[in-house]
Amino acid sequence: MPGLPAHLIPAARGIVPSDAVYRNARLFNAFGCDWERSDLAVKDGIIVGIGTSYKGEHERDLDGAYIVPGLIDAHVHIESSLLTPQEYARLVALHGTTTVIADPHEIANVSGAAGIEFMLASRQEAQVDILYMLPSCVPATPMDVGGATLDASDLHQFIGKEGIIGLGEMMNVPGVLEGNAGVMEKLELTPIRDGHAPLLSGNDLNAYILAGLQSDHECTTEKEAEEKLRRGMYIFIREGSTEKNIESLIPLVTAANVSRCCFATDDCHADLLAREGHIDRCIRKAIACGCVPEHAIRMATLSAAERFGLSDRGAIAPGKRADFCIVDDLEAFVVRETIHGTTGLHNFSVAPPVAAIPPTFRCTTPTSDQIQITGAGWARVIGIVPDQILTESLRYEITSQEIPDVKRDILKIVICNRYHNKAPGVGLVHGFGLKYGAIASSVAHDAHNIVAVGTSDAEIISAIAAVIRAQGGMVAGQKGEETLLPLDCAGLMSTMTYPEVVQRLSQLHASTERMGGIRNPFMYLSFLSLTVIPALRITDRGIFDGAAFRDVPLFEE
Amino acid sequence: MPGLPAHLIPAARGIVPSDAVYRNARLFNAFGCDWERSDLAVKDGIIVGIGTSYKGEHERDLDGAYIVPGLIDAHVHIESSLLTPQEYARLVALHGTTTVIADPHEIANVSGAAGIEFMLASRQEAQVDILYMLPSCVPATPMDVGGATLDASDLHQFIGKEGIIGLGEMMNVPGVLEGNAGVMEKLELTPIRDGHAPLLSGNDLNAYILAGLQSDHECTTEKEAEEKLRRGMYIFIREGSTEKNIESLIPLVTAANVSRCCFATDDCHADLLAREGHIDRCIRKAIACGCVPEHAIRMATLSAAERFGLSDRGAIAPGKRADFCIVDDLEAFVVRETIHGTTGLHNFSVAPPVAAIPPTFRCTTPTSDQIQITGAGWARVIGIVPDQILTESLRYEITSQEIPDVKRDILKIVICNRYHNKAPGVGLVHGFGLKYGAIASSVAHDAHNIVAVGTSDAEIISAIAAVIRAQGGMVAGQKGEETLLPLDCAGLMSTMTYPEVVQRLSQLHASTERMGGIRNPFMYLSFLSLTVIPALRITDRGIFDGAAFRDVPLFEE
Repeated sequence: MPGLPAHLIPAARGIVPSDAVYRNARLFNAFGCDWERSDLAVKDGIIVGIGTSYKGEHERDLDGAYIVPGLIDAHVHIESSLLTPQEYARLVALHGTTTVIADPHEIANVSGAAGIEFMLASRQEAQVDILYMLPSCVPATPMDVGGATLDASDLHQFIGKEGIIGLGEMMNVPGVLEGNAGVMEKLELTPIRDGHAPLLSGNDLNAYILAGLQSDHECTTEKEAEEKLRRGMYIFIREGSTEKNIESLIPLVTAANVSRCCFATDDCHADLLAREGHIDRCIRKAIACGCVPEHAIRMATLSAAERFGLSDRGAIAPGKRADFCIVDDLEAFVVRETIHGTTGLHNFSVAPPVAAIPPTFRCTTPTSDQIQITGAGWARVIGIVPDQILTESLRYEITSQEIPDVKRDILKIVICNRYHNKAPGVGLVHGFGLKYGAIASSVAHDAHNIVAVGTSDAEIISAIAAVIRAQGGMVAGQKGEETLLPLDCAGLMSTMTYPEVVQRLSQLHASTERMGGIRNPFMYLSFLSLTVIPALRITDRGIFDGAAFRDVPLFEE
Repeated sequence: MPGLPAHLIPAARGIVPSDAVYRNARLFNAFGCDWERSDLAVKDGIIVGIGTSYKGEHERDLDGAYIVPGLIDAHVHIESSLLTPQEYARLVALHGTTTVIADPHEIANVSGAAGIEFMLASRQEAQVDILYMLPSCVPATPMDVGGATLDASDLHQFIGKEGIIGLGEMMNVPGVLEGNAGVMEKLELTPIRDGHAPLLSGNDLNAYILAGLQSDHECTTEKEAEEKLRRGMYIFIREGSTEKNIESLIPLVTAANVSRCCFATDDCHADLLAREGHIDRCIRKAIACGCVPEHAIRMATLSAAERFGLSDRGAIAPGKRADFCIVDDLEAFVVRETIHGTTGLHNFSVAPPVAAIPPTFRCTTPTSDQIQITGAGWARVIGIVPDQILTESLRYEITSQEIPDVKRDILKIVICNRYHNKAPGVGLVHGFGLKYGAIASSVAHDAHNIVAVGTSDAEIISAIAAVIRAQGGMVAGQKGEETLLPLDCAGLMSTMTYPEVVQRLSQLHASTERMGGIRNPFMYLSFLSLTVIPALRITDRGIFDGAAFRDVPLFEE
């Protein structure tokens, strides 16, 4: 329990001056979704009062600008930005964010408890408050072989540590439904537990909720979200780089249920964050899709704070952290300035870096023979669904000689285990649109093996080789020319500053565009190995049928 | 943290039968304030699922009746019912209540920690879940002398005990505003803290909230409640026997703020509970005053559960306690049946009694001389405000010989300290309407001395003598005829069953009606010594000015 700010009572009463008074602002009232024109007084990073009689050491006239509580991301994997937590914080703070609820699931899959420790160390002095949910599924499924296994006893050491607030998305839906003992032990660790249950419905959804899962960020249709909301789940409406659900789900939000809805970005590359924003982007998109602005802001602030029991934030009210942002136009919702707790009126500075987790790639580059496919018939092809994390399970009649089939956009996808030197998994994918070259990445959910897709075996192999050579990274290669973003922290994140990473990502994306690829191909690529989301996936063992939850051959039997 | 019901997963999935299935019901969706027609499955006192494919050992067709989550009283002093907690529970359970958040403030003022222990023991096997907030103000003010003093170290022993969930209404507003160390220590005890701040506004309200107080149940105007709501307080809209705020406050409630509003009964005599109901009465009154029925139900269920962090109740959803009630007509809102957790389909039985706290009246009956008043001029007269706990500070020009002045309804009021043999406090009150006789009671907030009001000194003395003789009770006496309700548990509660207490109370109220008195005179009488509520009060020292927070003489200087 955080100590109470009793020493600020005289400031709240107006007997002694505050540090800062923001005069003449439109203050958001999260408790009633409306506005109040008044002054806001802040001292020692705490909101001490609202009213027109406060005096401050510093005073500013906001001339009717909007003051909105600091924005909260209800669920994000910071690693997906490709930035370290400190650089991530520096970037999203510019967009009005003051709190992120992060699940260090990616680095935990690579580096286990040491990865979580790295993320915890990185939250110190970060420019937004980073709170972690413990990764519940390392590895993602019992079949996956990643860099670590974390069971309840491994996670237990983190309970009660500052910065740890709950258990992250429980993706092992079958494990929950069968009452798996190891899963149940994890659920018993903490009273705050995030769910992850794409398309789950009916009695099994009831069972999943009864087991203790309280939220879901995987809804893709209004019907799905409505059922989960009715059954008591908080709905985190997600808008990531390639997982875009606001347009479909925002019509569900009403004044009566807005307290149970939040925003989440889940997975966003740094370039998108820099270009389009973070939770401010979600608010803009929601408003553009017809959401009442005040509801969108409520979702991004108090609703998220309430969901995680963070009673010290989420609203402009006495005793809350002075986390807020200044906005000039409500519909445009461009954040002019972010104030985050004790930083008061000052600008953010660069936090001292935390020693990065070294990447460890113990694999060798696959040979041409190892990535051959043979045979003919109806092949299982992973179908990318634009703007969604779900994939389709497609069937195409092919002969192996036809692959890559650039015309029908059927490309070879290869996964090399990064932890062991073993033969790669090989499959087919539709939807990348690449006409030339190949791309490869060491970000491949959730085991984070090396994944590559391309228009020729040689270029696929070359791209994989480049990732191994860099000991982690993202590569776009065409005719011997390679664009590389090194990911020197666990093969997942770059230790460069965010402007540098944004620049490199922009170069990478320019390359893939020249190769004919869709937007954000690396984000789509990273999810194709994610076995906990329907329908068809690829692992280092080959094709995986998410519905049947088992490995399947490339060609139908 | 309560254990998770993993063993119920197969029942939730519908693989094994439930204990009970309620078919064809209209289920309240607290998360969106609407309804869903479906079946409800319950096992081991837990809601396992909603859906039409469940089978149960018992099945009932509700033919479209409404199922509403069990009702929650956000703030009540059970002692004010004059019933023991077990009998109170038995009575309110009939009205749809399944949880009450009680502050054992009255018995703590009389018996200290032993009183709290009694209340804790009495919650065992009670037919609603009684959760306690620790009384924060024993005695109510530093000037009051009651039966006990509880400082933070005395309260600390109760933290973490089952049934204790927070700190009850902090009435010492001046203590909070001056940052009094003892008050701050109490606020630091627990993260859940109820406020009590009638008429507090502006910067001082900001300071009070900043200090950690999160709710208020003392609002009497919409303006007051709106300001507190905006500043982050939960508003408990109160409807007691004589404290009636629903009509004034309910227009404030909207879909956007309903999650921050609850109902509280604070102080209700048993006869009112039996005749008019409990939280169901609040819902009916709210609807009659124009509240959307679904908003009223949300306030009485999920909003209260959320306010107190009770994630296991407040909604009809998987994993929640099977606490609900069946209602046939939404507007009429008469509870047909209450289901409370493990009681399932069965009826409630009588819980074994807990040994009562013996009353201790160490005073002797005052003499006629001791209750004389002398002098003439403009006298301070306590003015009763119908249906409110606030009083008015009236001025009447009188001579002492004119008192009692039945015509102008200016009666003598007397307070005898029950703990020490000392001279009584004497004052004047307007508003009781008594034409004959006198009434006396050992329920007199918060020190619970003996308070009496009457139309003759002899009858006042006689009524006080009867209370002392009974070692606690309520007495209505006229011309030597006395009607008595003995309060043998600490002089506050009766150990009789609730039907017996209701009957005795009805007799008492019939007597006071014959004497010309207003309705519920004992409830009004009990509050006239409550120094923490404006404006004028009476103590065993004499007249107390709540605004100036000091004793004042009867006649103006």
